[in-house]
Amino acid sequence: MSIELRNRLFEQLDQLVLIDPHTHINALDPSSHTLADILGYHYYTELSHSAGMPKEQIEEEGISEKEKVGRLIENFGPITNTIQYSWFIEMAQRLLDFDGDSVDASNWEALYDSAAEKMAADDWTETVFQKSGLEAVFLTNDFDDPLEDFDTSKYIPCLRTDDLVFHLTNPRTAVRLQEATDVNVTNVTSAREAIRKLFDHFTSKGAKACAISLPPTFAPVQVSDARAETALSNVLSKGTDADEADQRAVSNFIFWTLAENCRAYHLPFDLMIGVNRKVFPAGVFQGQDLYDSRVSLIQYKDLFNAFPDVTFPVSVLASVTNQELVSYSWIFPNVVANGHWWYSNTPTFIQHDCAARLEAVPRTKQIGYYSDMYKMEFALPKFAMYKRILAKVLAENFVIDRKWTEEAAVQLGTELLRGNVETIFHVGK
Amino acid sequence: MSIELRNRLFEQLDQLVLIDPHTHINALDPSSHTLADILGYHYYTELSHSAGMPKEQIEEEGISEKEKVGRLIENFGPITNTIQYSWFIEMAQRLLDFDGDSVDASNWEALYDSAAEKMAADDWTETVFQKSGLEAVFLTNDFDDPLEDFDTSKYIPCLRTDDLVFHLTNPRTAVRLQEATDVNVTNVTSAREAIRKLFDHFTSKGAKACAISLPPTFAPVQVSDARAETALSNVLSKGTDADEADQRAVSNFIFWTLAENCRAYHLPFDLMIGVNRKVFPAGVFQGQDLYDSRVSLIQYKDLFNAFPDVTFPVSVLASVTNQELVSYSWIFPNVVANGHWWYSNTPTFIQHDCAARLEAVPRTKQIGYYSDMYKMEFALPKFAMYKRILAKVLAENFVIDRKWTEEAAVQLGTELLRGNVETIFHVGK
Amino acid sequence: MSIELRNRLFEQLDQLVLIDPHTHINALDPSSHTLADILGYHYYTELSHSAGMPKEQIEEEGISEKEKVGRLIENFGPITNTIQYSWFIEMAQRLLDFDGDSVDASNWEALYDSAAEKMAADDWTETVFQKSGLEAVFLTNDFDDPLEDFDTSKYIPCLRTDDLVFHLTNPRTAVRLQEATDVNVTNVTSAREAIRKLFDHFTSKGAKACAISLPPTFAPVQVSDARAETALSNVLSKGTDADEADQRAVSNFIFWTLAENCRAYHLPFDLMIGVNRKVFPAGVFQGQDLYDSRVSLIQYKDLFNAFPDVTFPVSVLASVTNQELVSYSWIFPNVVANGHWWYSNTPTFIQHDCAARLEAVPRTKQIGYYSDMYKMEFALPKFAMYKRILAKVLAENFVIDRKWTEEAAVQLGTELLRGNVETIFHVGK
Repeated sequence: MSIELRNRLFEQLDQLVLIDPHTHINALDPSSHTLADILGYHYYTELSHSAGMPKEQIEEEGISEKEKVGRLIENFGPITNTIQYSWFIEMAQRLLDFDGDSVDASNWEALYDSAAEKMAADDWTETVFQKSGLEAVFLTNDFDDPLEDFDTSKYIPCLRTDDLVFHLTNPRTAVRLQEATDVNVTNVTSAREAIRKLFDHFTSKGAKACAISLPPTFAPVQVSDARAETALSNVLSKGTDADEADQRAVSNFIFWTLAENCRAYHLPFDLMIGVNRKVFPAGVFQGQDLYDSRVSLIQYKDLFNAFPDVTFPVSVLASVTNQELVSYSWIFPNVVANGHWWYSNTPTFIQHDCAARLEAVPRTKQIGYYSDMYKMEFALPKFAMYKRILAKVLAENFVIDRKWTEEAAVQLGTELLRGNVETIFHVGK
Repeated sequence: MSIELRNRLFEQLDQLVLIDPHTHINALDPSSHTLADILGYHYYTELSHSAGMPKEQIEEEGISEKEKVGRLIENFGPITNTIQYSWFIEMAQRLLDFDGDSVDASNWEALYDSAAEKMAADDWTETVFQKSGLEAVFLTNDFDDPLEDFDTSKYIPCLRTDDLVFHLTNPRTAVRLQEATDVNVTNVTSAREAIRKLFDHFTSKGAKACAISLPPTFAPVQVSDARAETALSNVLSKGTDADEADQRAVSNFIFWTLAENCRAYHLPFDLMIGVNRKVFPAGVFQGQDLYDSRVSLIQYKDLFNAFPDVTFPVSVLASVTNQELVSYSWIFPNVVANGHWWYSNTPTFIQHDCAARLEAVPRTKQIGYYSDMYKMEFALPKFAMYKRILAKVLAENFVIDRKWTEEAAVQLGTELLRGNVETIFHVGK
Repeated sequence: MSIELRNRLFEQLDQLVLIDPHTHINALDPSSHTLADILGYHYYTELSHSAGMPKEQIEEEGISEKEKVGRLIENFGPITNTIQYSWFIEMAQRLLDFDGDSVDASNWEALYDSAAEKMAADDWTETVFQKSGLEAVFLTNDFDDPLEDFDTSKYIPCLRTDDLVFHLTNPRTAVRLQEATDVNVTNVTSAREAIRKLFDHFTSKGAKACAISLPPTFAPVQVSDARAETALSNVLSKGTDADEADQRAVSNFIFWTLAENCRAYHLPFDLMIGVNRKVFPAGVFQGQDLYDSRVSLIQYKDLFNAFPDVTFPVSVLASVTNQELVSYSWIFPNVVANGHWWYSNTPTFIQHDCAARLEAVPRTKQIGYYSDMYKMEFALPKFAMYKRILAKVLAENFVIDRKWTEEAAVQLGTELLRGNVETIFHVGK
C-alpha cells in the first residue's frame, strides 16, 4: 500500500515545473558537452580517488575528455553502491536515452559517443531544462561577475561573498573589488561604499539572493567602526600575516555589512554553515573539504536578532545540526530551512531531516531542495531523489500516520518544491 | 500488516489510566475556560509569530479572548503541517466534539462558542481528566508556592528550583525565600536551613519530585563551604554585578544542596538539560528560548557518582544527546531516561529516541512520556501522539523484528506509560 | 512484501563463512565452560547493576559459577527488553538447543547444566566456530603477549596499543616493554627501537592489525624529537605526576611512532574513537566507561594526511559521529568505516549508521561488523542481529527504493561481511 501511495505522490510532485534556488551553473555554458563535463563533477572524482584511483590518473593534464571518462568509468566498480553513481545512471537513462542500468568497460564508449552527439544539439540546454521540469536556476556569482550576456530571469544572479568575508587577506581580492566597483578599498568607509556598489550592480541585474559558506568556527558579531578600521588596515597591509584577531574582525565587519545591504536591498542572505576548507589538501579538485560537526546555530543568535527584516535561508552541512535548524526556524521569523547540503544530501539524512522539518517548521518556511549542480544535467536525478524521499515522508508520516488526504500531502510538497522558492526569493510569480 | 498491528497495540495502550509526571498545570485553575487558554500556549503563538504574524497582533493588550483566538486561527494557514496544529485538532475533536478536520475563518467562531459552553460546566476539569485517561498530574511549583487549597494526590507537587540555582542574583528571590521559610539567607548555613525548610514544606504537602531546567554550559561540581561563603556573600550583595565565577559557585552550591536534600527526603531530582533562555528576546511570551546542542552528560559525571541514592530522571532537549542518555541510563543505576522534551517532542525525534531507549535501557528505567502542558486539555492529544509512536516502535522493532508477542509488547509499553511512573516517583500504587 | 524480501536476503547473508575482524577472544581459552563465562560479559553485569542489583551481589568473591548465573538470571526481569538479553536467548537457542524464549528462576538451572555439559565437549570451540559460520577471529593482544601456542591463522593477532600510548606513566608499562623487547626505554631512540621490535614480533606471528581506543579529547599531532625527549624523560621519571602537557606529548610521540610502524609493516591501524574510561568508578568490572559525544574526526586530520599509505579502519562510539565517519571515508582514501562499536551496537543506531554508509562510502571501504566479543559464543547472535539489519537496509533502501536486484544486494552485503575484511586486512584469501 505504502509503495503505491509513494509512487502516486511522486508522480504528482514530478509534474511540477521548478526553480532551482542554488546551483553553480555557468550561465554562459550551462550544460555539458561530453560526459567529461558530467564525470568531472567532484562527487565522481573524489569517490574514485577515495576508492583508490590515483589523483594523477584522474587529473592528468593533456588527456582527452574521452580518455578521462573511460578511466573513471572503468574504475567505477567500488562506487556503484553510492547514490551519486545512481544519479549518473538515472541522468543517462532519462536525458541520454541510455537503456542499461550500469556502466562499465563494455558499454561506456557507446554512451560517451551518443551523449556527445546529443549534447552538440543547439537546443540541448533547452532540452535539459524542459526534461528536467526546470524553469530557472539560481547562479553562484563571484562578486566581480559582470552578469552580462545571459537571461537573468532564467539564470538568476546570486551574489556569493566568501571571498569578501574570508579572503581580503589576499591582495588579489582588493584588486578585483576595485576593478568591479571603481572604489579603492582602504578603510571602513570605502569598504562600505564598494559593497554597496556590488549590491547596486547585482540587484540591477536581477540578483535575488546573497550567499556565503561559513566554517564551523564562525560566530558573527558586530564590531565597532574603530575596531574595524584598525583591523582592516592591518589586513589590507599584512595579508595573511595579520593577527588572527584582526582577520576575524574584518570578517565580522564585512559580514555584518553584507547583512546590512541585504536589509537595504531586500535580498535573502543564504547561510551555508559548517564547512572546513582543504582538510585533505592532497584530494582532487573540489574534493578536499570536510567539516567539524560541532557547530551550533547559537553562534548566529546576534545576527538573527539584529536583522529581523532579513530572511536567512540556512543550510547546515551535518545532519546532527538539523534539529537546531528545525528549532531556530520554528522560533525565529527570519530563519528558513534550506535544502539538504552536500554531505547531508544523501537519502538517509534527507529523509530524517526532511521529516523533522515537515512536522515542526511552518510550511511556508522550508525550501525543499536545491541541486547545487555545476552542470544542468544533474538537476533531474538530484531532484528526482529528493522528490522520491519527500513522497515517502509525505506518504508515511502524513497520509498514513496523520490521515492526511493525498491532495493535502501533494499540496504541502508543492509548497516545499515551488511555492516557497517564489515567496522567499521573490521570483517566478 | 504492520498498520493493523500498530493500531491493535495503540488501542491497548490507550486503555491505560495514567499519571502525567511533568506538567505546568495550575492546580487552582487546571483546565481552560475558552479557546484563548488553549491557543495562548506558546506553541501556537510562537509558530504563528515565526510564520509572520506580528507580536503586537498576537499579544495586543486589551483585546478580547475571542478576538485573540480569531486572529490566531485565521493565520493558521502556514502552520497546518505542524504536529502542534494536529494536537489542537485532535483535542477539539475528542474533547470538544468538533467534527471538522481543520479550523479556519469559516468555522472557528462556532467552535469557540461551543468550547466556551463546554468549558463552563462545573465538571469540565473532571471530564477532561476522565476523557484523557488521567488520574493525576505532577505540577511545577515555585519554591514559595503555599501548596494549599488543592488535592495533592491528584495535583502532585514538584519543587521547581531554577530560581534558587540561577537567580539568587535577583534580590527578589532572597525576599521570596525569606517569606517562604522565615529564614534570612545571608550565608551558607542559613541557605542550607532555608532549603531544608522548603523540602520539609514540599514533602509535607506530598511533593514527589524536585526539578530544574539547566543551560548547556552547566556542569555541576561540589564547592567547598569556604568558597560558597565568599561567593554567596558577593552574589547577595552585588546581584548580577557579582563576578561570573561567584555566580557559578553559588549555582553549584545551591544545586549540590538540592541534591543533598533530594537524598535526605527521598525525592527524585528531575534534570531537564540543555536550554538557553532568551535567545530570541523579541519573541512572544515563552517563545524566546532555544539551545546549543553541544552538551554532554559527562558534565554530570561528578553528580551521578556523588549521589548514588538519588534517582535522576533526565530529559535532554536535543535528540543528538539522546544516545548519551541511553548509555548513561544503561550504566548508572541512578539515571533514568525521562520523556521527550520540548524541541524533541515531535514524532521523528520521539520515534528515533524511543526506539534507541527501548532496546538498551532497562525497562524499569524509562519514563515514556510527560505532557509538559499548561492546560489539562493538552494531555489527550500529546499522549495520543506518543502512544501511536510507541505502538509503532513496539510493532516494528519488537513484534516484527524480534518476534515478541503482542501481549509482551503491550506489557512493555504499559511499564513505560504507567508502571515506571509509580515506582520511580512513589505514586499511584 | 518487504519482510519476505528481508528474510530472503538474510538467509543468503547467513550462509557466508566469516572472519570476525575485532574480538577480545583469548586464543588459549576461546569459548565458554559454563554460563558464568557468558553472563560474566559486562553487558549483563552492567545492565543488571544499572537495574538495581548491588555490585556486591554480582561480583561477590567465592561464590560458585552456578550461584552467580542464578543470581543474574533471577534478576533479568528488568532487562528482558534489551537487545543484549536477546543475544543471550538466541545464543542459547542456536548453540545450546534451548527451546524456550525466556530464562528465569523456573528454567535457568536446567539450561546451566546442559550448557556445562555441551561446553565440556572437546570439540566445543570447533562446534561454535562451525555453527557460527566463522573461519577465524582477530584477537586484541597486549603488546607483551608472546603469541604462542595457538594457530595464528585462526586466531589472528592484533597489536593493541592503549597501554603504550596512554599508560607509560605507569612504571609497570616500561617494565613490561623491556621484558617484551629487551630494550630499556629511556629516551626517544630506545622507545622507537622497542616499538619496532614489537611490530617485528607481532608481524612475525601473523598479526594483521594494530589497534587502539582513544578518548574524545585526543587529537594526534606530530611532536619534534626534542619535545618528545623532554616529555618522555619527565613521564618516565615522574609517572602520573608529570605535567599534563608532557603526558600528552608522550602520547602523541608514541601514537605517531605506531603509525610510522604501521606504514613500515603494512598494518592497518584500527582507531576506536571516543571512549572516556572510568566515568562510573563504582560500576562493575568493564561497566565503568562512557563518553562525551562531542568529538570530531577533524581531530585526526593531520594523521590522515601524514599517512596516506596507512589504512585506518575507524570506529566511532557515538552515532552522532557516524556522519563524519561517512564523509571522511568518502573523501580520504585511507579512512575506512569499521563496524558498529559498543554503545552504537544496538539496532536503531546500526540501522541508521549502516544505511548512511551504504549509500555514500565506496563499497570497498566499509567493514560491516565485528563482534567485539570476549567469548566465542557471542559471534552468532551479534552477527545475526547485524545481518538482519543489513538485510533490512538492503531490502528497503536498495531493492525497493533503488530497484536493485536481490543478487546485487546480496553481493553488496557479502562484501561488507567478508570481502572487505579480506582485502583490507590481507587475510583469508
